[in-house]
Amino acid sequence: MHPFQNDSPDGDDDKLHEECGVFAIHGNADAAKHTALGLHALQHRGQEAAGIVSLKNNHFNAHRDVGQVGDIFDKPQIMNRLEGHAAIGHNRYATTGETALRNVQPLFADLEFGGFALAHNGNLTNARKLRRELVHRGSLFQSTTDTEVVIHLMATAPANTVIERMIHALRQIEGAYSFVAMTSKEVIGVRDPLGVRPLVLGKLGDSYILASETCALDIIDAEFIRDVAPGEMVVIDDTGLRTLNPFPPTKQRFCVFEYIYFSRPDSVVDGTSVYEARKRIGMELARESHVPADTVIPVPDSGVPAALGYSQWAGIPFELGIIRNHYVGRTFIEPTDSIRHLGVKLKHNANLACIRGKRVVLVDDSIVRGTTSAKIVNMVRQAGAAEVHMRIAAPPTRHPCFYGIDTPSENELLAARYDVEGMAKLIGCDSLAFISFDGLYRAMGEEGRNAVEPQYCDACFTGDYPIRLIDQDDKETLSNQLSLLTESG
Amino acid sequence: MHPFQNDSPDGDDDKLHEECGVFAIHGNADAAKHTALGLHALQHRGQEAAGIVSLKNNHFNAHRDVGQVGDIFDKPQIMNRLEGHAAIGHNRYATTGETALRNVQPLFADLEFGGFALAHNGNLTNARKLRRELVHRGSLFQSTTDTEVVIHLMATAPANTVIERMIHALRQIEGAYSFVAMTSKEVIGVRDPLGVRPLVLGKLGDSYILASETCALDIIDAEFIRDVAPGEMVVIDDTGLRTLNPFPPTKQRFCVFEYIYFSRPDSVVDGTSVYEARKRIGMELARESHVPADTVIPVPDSGVPAALGYSQWAGIPFELGIIRNHYVGRTFIEPTDSIRHLGVKLKHNANLACIRGKRVVLVDDSIVRGTTSAKIVNMVRQAGAAEVHMRIAAPPTRHPCFYGIDTPSENELLAARYDVEGMAKLIGCDSLAFISFDGLYRAMGEEGRNAVEPQYCDACFTGDYPIRLIDQDDKETLSNQLSLLTESG
Amino acid sequence: MHPFQNDSPDGDDDKLHEECGVFAIHGNADAAKHTALGLHALQHRGQEAAGIVSLKNNHFNAHRDVGQVGDIFDKPQIMNRLEGHAAIGHNRYATTGETALRNVQPLFADLEFGGFALAHNGNLTNARKLRRELVHRGSLFQSTTDTEVVIHLMATAPANTVIERMIHALRQIEGAYSFVAMTSKEVIGVRDPLGVRPLVLGKLGDSYILASETCALDIIDAEFIRDVAPGEMVVIDDTGLRTLNPFPPTKQRFCVFEYIYFSRPDSVVDGTSVYEARKRIGMELARESHVPADTVIPVPDSGVPAALGYSQWAGIPFELGIIRNHYVGRTFIEPTDSIRHLGVKLKHNANLACIRGKRVVLVDDSIVRGTTSAKIVNMVRQAGAAEVHMRIAAPPTRHPCFYGIDTPSENELLAARYDVEGMAKLIGCDSLAFISFDGLYRAMGEEGRNAVEPQYCDACFTGDYPIRLIDQDDKETLSNQLSLLTESG
Amino acid sequence: MHPFQNDSPDGDDDKLHEECGVFAIHGNADAAKHTALGLHALQHRGQEAAGIVSLKNNHFNAHRDVGQVGDIFDKPQIMNRLEGHAAIGHNRYATTGETALRNVQPLFADLEFGGFALAHNGNLTNARKLRRELVHRGSLFQSTTDTEVVIHLMATAPANTVIERMIHALRQIEGAYSFVAMTSKEVIGVRDPLGVRPLVLGKLGDSYILASETCALDIIDAEFIRDVAPGEMVVIDDTGLRTLNPFPPTKQRFCVFEYIYFSRPDSVVDGTSVYEARKRIGMELARESHVPADTVIPVPDSGVPAALGYSQWAGIPFELGIIRNHYVGRTFIEPTDSIRHLGVKLKHNANLACIRGKRVVLVDDSIVRGTTSAKIVNMVRQAGAAEVHMRIAAPPTRHPCFYGIDTPSENELLAARYDVEGMAKLIGCDSLAFISFDGLYRAMGEEGRNAVEPQYCDACFTGDYPIRLIDQDDKETLSNQLSLLTESG
Repeated sequence: MHPFQNDSPDGDDDKLHEECGVFAIHGNADAAKHTALGLHALQHRGQEAAGIVSLKNNHFNAHRDVGQVGDIFDKPQIMNRLEGHAAIGHNRYATTGETALRNVQPLFADLEFGGFALAHNGNLTNARKLRRELVHRGSLFQSTTDTEVVIHLMATAPANTVIERMIHALRQIEGAYSFVAMTSKEVIGVRDPLGVRPLVLGKLGDSYILASETCALDIIDAEFIRDVAPGEMVVIDDTGLRTLNPFPPTKQRFCVFEYIYFSRPDSVVDGTSVYEARKRIGMELARESHVPADTVIPVPDSGVPAALGYSQWAGIPFELGIIRNHYVGRTFIEPTDSIRHLGVKLKHNANLACIRGKRVVLVDDSIVRGTTSAKIVNMVRQAGAAEVHMRIAAPPTRHPCFYGIDTPSENELLAARYDVEGMAKLIGCDSLAFISFDGLYRAMGEEGRNAVEPQYCDACFTGDYPIRLIDQDDKETLSNQLSLLTESG
Repeated sequence: MHPFQNDSPDGDDDKLHEECGVFAIHGNADAAKHTALGLHALQHRGQEAAGIVSLKNNHFNAHRDVGQVGDIFDKPQIMNRLEGHAAIGHNRYATTGETALRNVQPLFADLEFGGFALAHNGNLTNARKLRRELVHRGSLFQSTTDTEVVIHLMATAPANTVIERMIHALRQIEGAYSFVAMTSKEVIGVRDPLGVRPLVLGKLGDSYILASETCALDIIDAEFIRDVAPGEMVVIDDTGLRTLNPFPPTKQRFCVFEYIYFSRPDSVVDGTSVYEARKRIGMELARESHVPADTVIPVPDSGVPAALGYSQWAGIPFELGIIRNHYVGRTFIEPTDSIRHLGVKLKHNANLACIRGKRVVLVDDSIVRGTTSAKIVNMVRQAGAAEVHMRIAAPPTRHPCFYGIDTPSENELLAARYDVEGMAKLIGCDSLAFISFDGLYRAMGEEGRNAVEPQYCDACFTGDYPIRLIDQDDKETLSNQLSLLTESG
Repeated sequence: MHPFQNDSPDGDDDKLHEECGVFAIHGNADAAKHTALGLHALQHRGQEAAGIVSLKNNHFNAHRDVGQVGDIFDKPQIMNRLEGHAAIGHNRYATTGETALRNVQPLFADLEFGGFALAHNGNLTNARKLRRELVHRGSLFQSTTDTEVVIHLMATAPANTVIERMIHALRQIEGAYSFVAMTSKEVIGVRDPLGVRPLVLGKLGDSYILASETCALDIIDAEFIRDVAPGEMVVIDDTGLRTLNPFPPTKQRFCVFEYIYFSRPDSVVDGTSVYEARKRIGMELARESHVPADTVIPVPDSGVPAALGYSQWAGIPFELGIIRNHYVGRTFIEPTDSIRHLGVKLKHNANLACIRGKRVVLVDDSIVRGTTSAKIVNMVRQAGAAEVHMRIAAPPTRHPCFYGIDTPSENELLAARYDVEGMAKLIGCDSLAFISFDGLYRAMGEEGRNAVEPQYCDACFTGDYPIRLIDQDDKETLSNQLSLLTESG
Repeated sequence: MHPFQNDSPDGDDDKLHEECGVFAIHGNADAAKHTALGLHALQHRGQEAAGIVSLKNNHFNAHRDVGQVGDIFDKPQIMNRLEGHAAIGHNRYATTGETALRNVQPLFADLEFGGFALAHNGNLTNARKLRRELVHRGSLFQSTTDTEVVIHLMATAPANTVIERMIHALRQIEGAYSFVAMTSKEVIGVRDPLGVRPLVLGKLGDSYILASETCALDIIDAEFIRDVAPGEMVVIDDTGLRTLNPFPPTKQRFCVFEYIYFSRPDSVVDGTSVYEARKRIGMELARESHVPADTVIPVPDSGVPAALGYSQWAGIPFELGIIRNHYVGRTFIEPTDSIRHLGVKLKHNANLACIRGKRVVLVDDSIVRGTTSAKIVNMVRQAGAAEVHMRIAAPPTRHPCFYGIDTPSENELLAARYDVEGMAKLIGCDSLAFISFDGLYRAMGEEGRNAVEPQYCDACFTGDYPIRLIDQDDKETLSNQLSLLTESG
């Protein structure tokens, strides 16, 4: 889910951002603690806010705040209040300004049939339209998230059971979503029919677990069972797990960018190791756009696996030519005339010993606005590189994502405004190459991109959007302000 | 308004508590600042939380927090964000524990016709019943306040204009209420048909003001115009002020306890100075239950005016025989065996010089549980008083209030369990007397209490409830939990 | 004690301020809790910071912070760490800006013989001179308080026992002081030879207590034993209490302003009730400067006892014509053109009912800058007073105090710049009268002021300074900056 | 410097810790901002507290707090108060509990000649002895740091100028130190005669800079000039830089562990790249203890360069087989029976794709207690490794450091209690090898370790302490408590 207005919290970080991670567990005496640990493992999917709702005897306990998981859930008195044998949790990216607290998930509602908690990774493409209709019928929205429409659709559904109400709601929404939900009896997981966002199923003793990635199973020593299937609704209660299929079958279109950047390298998605996929992309990249060089240097940390793949294929030594400072990396000092390049310097420093005099292949996962790339190339040059060849482990990012990834608007995307040559000139490198579409798909184990029925969602590269953009296409809907309230914190 | 579950935040303070104060202003460049000042003057009506919503060009800005007005609104960056030419504000008593933030008023909702903010002093007696019906129809409640039903009734009203929707809602609710509300065009004030709670109208230059008491007009040098009439709906917009009368005319029943304790002594309600009313009660009390004595001593601060009246009528010197410490008075040290009487000692100390060897008349405004009275009588005795005669400026408080005053349950009320003699014995005084019903009404300028058609609401003394207690009478409704969520802060 | 640079924290509060309160207890299992309660009772003597040092088995535990006692010491984990059977505490006025934490008392030092904690009410008049000498010899100062010189004098004293070292230090310092101190064995109390500042001795079971005022004994139900004598050094240890007299005998000169304003009305100083003293001043005032009037109105709270005395002597009814709002009274809203008189209005409101059309005698304890008086007279006039006669329960305040009271510089004192007629004109009252010197002394039980050997220190009225102003007279010393460091908090 | 009692803030982090980083700049309009950036680059040398003192026109401004640099110095109002053209700063490790604020550096003192600020990386070995003597003479210590003795020695020095006083003090202290200091005129840098801790000199325009490592020059684009020489005192003022040599010449003994772990890989110390040194250690390690394997995996992040060296020498592929989570890594959830291995799992996860079925060489920089190593080996085995061979880029750590590194006591060091075989068994790996002394020295460019006159300080491996341990050898001194005060924060 995302609030409709997004802001990048850190202008120096020129990356696309996954907007959420979700976790759920049922049948465990330490449900909330396991959820906190799972959210910590998923921290990279949303670093600005987090929340947990736990369930004890029909009563729900919640704690939601802005900040990182390890800071929000480190007080014993808070964890002790999150009692119960089931819990769901959510990490969230970029809740800036006024929207902060009312938009932090999981959302909760007292429905007629009892309490209901919901957390969402993805984005609904007809949420504004549905919201307008619901408001017209008298529903009052608490947040500006798209996720809340699901709850109002359930509250007003002509159905009796929670599951029926939820299916009623799911059949009205469109978009990309992996939901975890909790009622007083069940923990529920759902992926959208195309399976754009990930969701996996695990088990720890008798407890079932749902999580965005397998790394959240690893941290609690849980066993990975399988991916939740696209379009599948998994219902877990005291009697075990059952599967419902509320949608007609469709070809899946998993987000290929999860492999390129969003997911953690130690996660396994759909049977494929993310780390291995990235290394293979690096190998394909080396094969496609090899250049004579002395050293392969990753832009840390996300460029490392592709750089290793490049290095291994090309036989050029891999070196940590850029050192990353992992302490608080945001710009904490106001720049002045005498202090420049702050953003990039706070995080990265050139490691002179392996750059000076060398022909450098610089490997990064993607280029978004290009601002950071230009600064890094400049830093590497100043460190004495003889040549700088930039290799990108993704195709040019030309289109915004409407399925749960925070992207700048199209006119901020470098690749939407320049061809590769123009980009190279702006960035200041001696050569620039992106992996080809087919190269990317080959790295994923396909023979190439199936143009008729593409195997993945790659809309940010191709503009081929597999789900209708209903709100986007309705200019009036889009311009409508979701809330007239600004709340200061 | 009040959340349905109440807790006294301070066991040492054995008083009934007004649950809210409201303020509204329209057509002033410093709307939010004036509102903050007005709320500061009304702080005695609700000391645990406060909020302001301001309006600028159809957009609403809110700040709500727990704490006192002077602490919540002292940061310039917060006040600067509360822009606009209209604002409403609310003070609230006793938002303890989990209910804290989601129950702090003014409430706000994005209704189909635009934003709507609402603040409430009083209590609705059929809110639970209405809530149950609304939830059944699919409305999702954000808070556990009774006030929120008004907004959902408006959201689902079969009407077009805001005013029509609000009148539709008002005609369904029962109870005691003084509302201030704000739309993108209007500031609105309403008193319930009986006018149980106060609401006054003032003017500052061209700006109209609504406030719970006249002291909130004084602090901003505004002119007092008149009381809003019972059952009156006042609508203020750029074209001026107009009055609507959504209800059939009824005899008014203003809360007599506002004169006894709740309102500030410098306020004027319905043409009568609260200070003068209290002094006259003290005079009646002296007339009714005079006792030979050397000194008249108030329990500060609320007993002072009645004690002055008593002293002046009886010709016995008034002395500050109990000194009150106005610094943070709650119990901040955990009591141990060697540290007792903390509650009362933190606030009050006997002034030996005017007690030792004296026959003391001790004047207080009311007795609720009697715990504080017993401690104070004991303190006065230990200071060497020869005799202690307690005189109470109200009749015995025997019944809970359901109209917006926080009262303990009936079995905690001392007067519900003992007769006056029994109470005197428990409190430990040599004699105890309360003002009579007729004495009280005489002090209010009446000839006595009109038993058929009482001039005031005095249900807490008489059990004569002028408004139906619908929720109270429906055991099932009452036992129903309002929210299944506990949110830790 | 005071830091050498003072700032009034609240420009609206036109009062002189006592700069400190002290408390000590020995031989009690709840030593720190009793100290916190004692400091709460002494809060009026210093409201900006407080600290406690406790002693357990030679080890000292401290907690010091800015804020009010009830906020600083309300956390059980803090109180639990303040273990031990002895403790000393300190309240402090006006620690603004950078001096905040390093100047909060009690001061503590690891001396060669063990730990030593010290708290000070008063002001040393040769501290700067001593400091300069100590720094020259290599002493490093941690704070900018005058109190710290005592500790350095002890550290470098040619003496063996703590007591000898302390006497060595006491014989070098000049000024007004009531010290409480604590070593690993003893709790110590000392008053300067003239006894300018108060210090009383009490007992609770077997525990001895030292405190600035008797109200700090009352709050913990301790028994008042006697005042510590001027020039007396009281040493309390496990064997009991003993008295040392380090100084030659002198006539005492207690601060008369303690009776007029600083002390709490329920305290008893030197056998005299502060409340009674104030009432007698009011009576003398009525006798000296009677004027026909309808009502006597105090400026609350400090003017109340004198107003009662005036009313009783003159036979004119006493009324609460000005209501004081005891909630956070500082200016929390930035004034704008449309919002004026904020300072005085936030705290005081005219009670129209007892002012309109009346000839008012307005009684206040003192006039310092006169700014508040002018605002209050104006407020009373706007409320419709027919005449306003101001009566002041102190002589004109013409000179700064150098003995522990925060006074504005001489040229800010209204009485230093105008005669009574000029002051009346500026303040805007119909008549103005101060009590005479002899009237004041008569109220204190003397026949009048003994001009040769005055019975009290009244330097702020008379300029007759009983202790040499060594630092003040040495221009060079005075201009010298005490610390070159500004620490931001 | 360090406070004498140390506590590891994080039991999960089984590393030695550098205790401080220092930075100083002179002649720059943004002195404090550059210092904050420099401290950010040095954050790895001390992560628990930081402070800056700046100088403007003889006046010093300070801000010191616990936390990370980016959090302490991110408020513009704090940076704006740190005015001036010169500044010094300090990062500090492990200020736990009560010692927190009074021990945060830079220390500051108002000496007779003016203000003096001092920051220290290292540890004095006779500080307790000197402290005892100073206290005997009447000096009062504010902190429990060893550094403070330097200031008291200066305050009581029989000398006139600051420089003379400082030299007087330096000649009395023993130990390892790199000081930066600031007077109202000069910025000063000193390294101890053996040059145990690093200190480099840089230049930015006309501004001279001193810093613990070159990475602090890089972040502000400053030019590296040279290392400050062992025993050199550098004095920088408006006239430029001059060198003093207060000590007789000695052979230098730089801390070899700075190369192994403490310094950042992108720093250059004494002409040698830390990254290259680590890679060479990895190569020597591969040469000395090669084992047939399928993959070389570093324990991230510190094991990466040595693992790369190992991989390159051995021709075995380097893979990121352990993924490190860089978000808040401390144990934020209380472990329960069902939640174990938390410490290591919060930070590290096995990357199954490159471990399953493989013979793994696991490279780490050092082994301290061995607890983390055992958990990581176990994690790698559970991920399916066929064999696990541990290779350590340092000799066995057998002795505590007394020169500024936080080490556990000798009986907690695994290598002090077991031989290599015993360690391998405890850790659970198939084989374990450490680099040899000569291998280490060869990696540093020497022919081997010169046993008579070792080229580096390697006391933690060899027990060969190049500086006398005076306090350590005096049992009485050591047992003496430095302060009798515990201050709660």
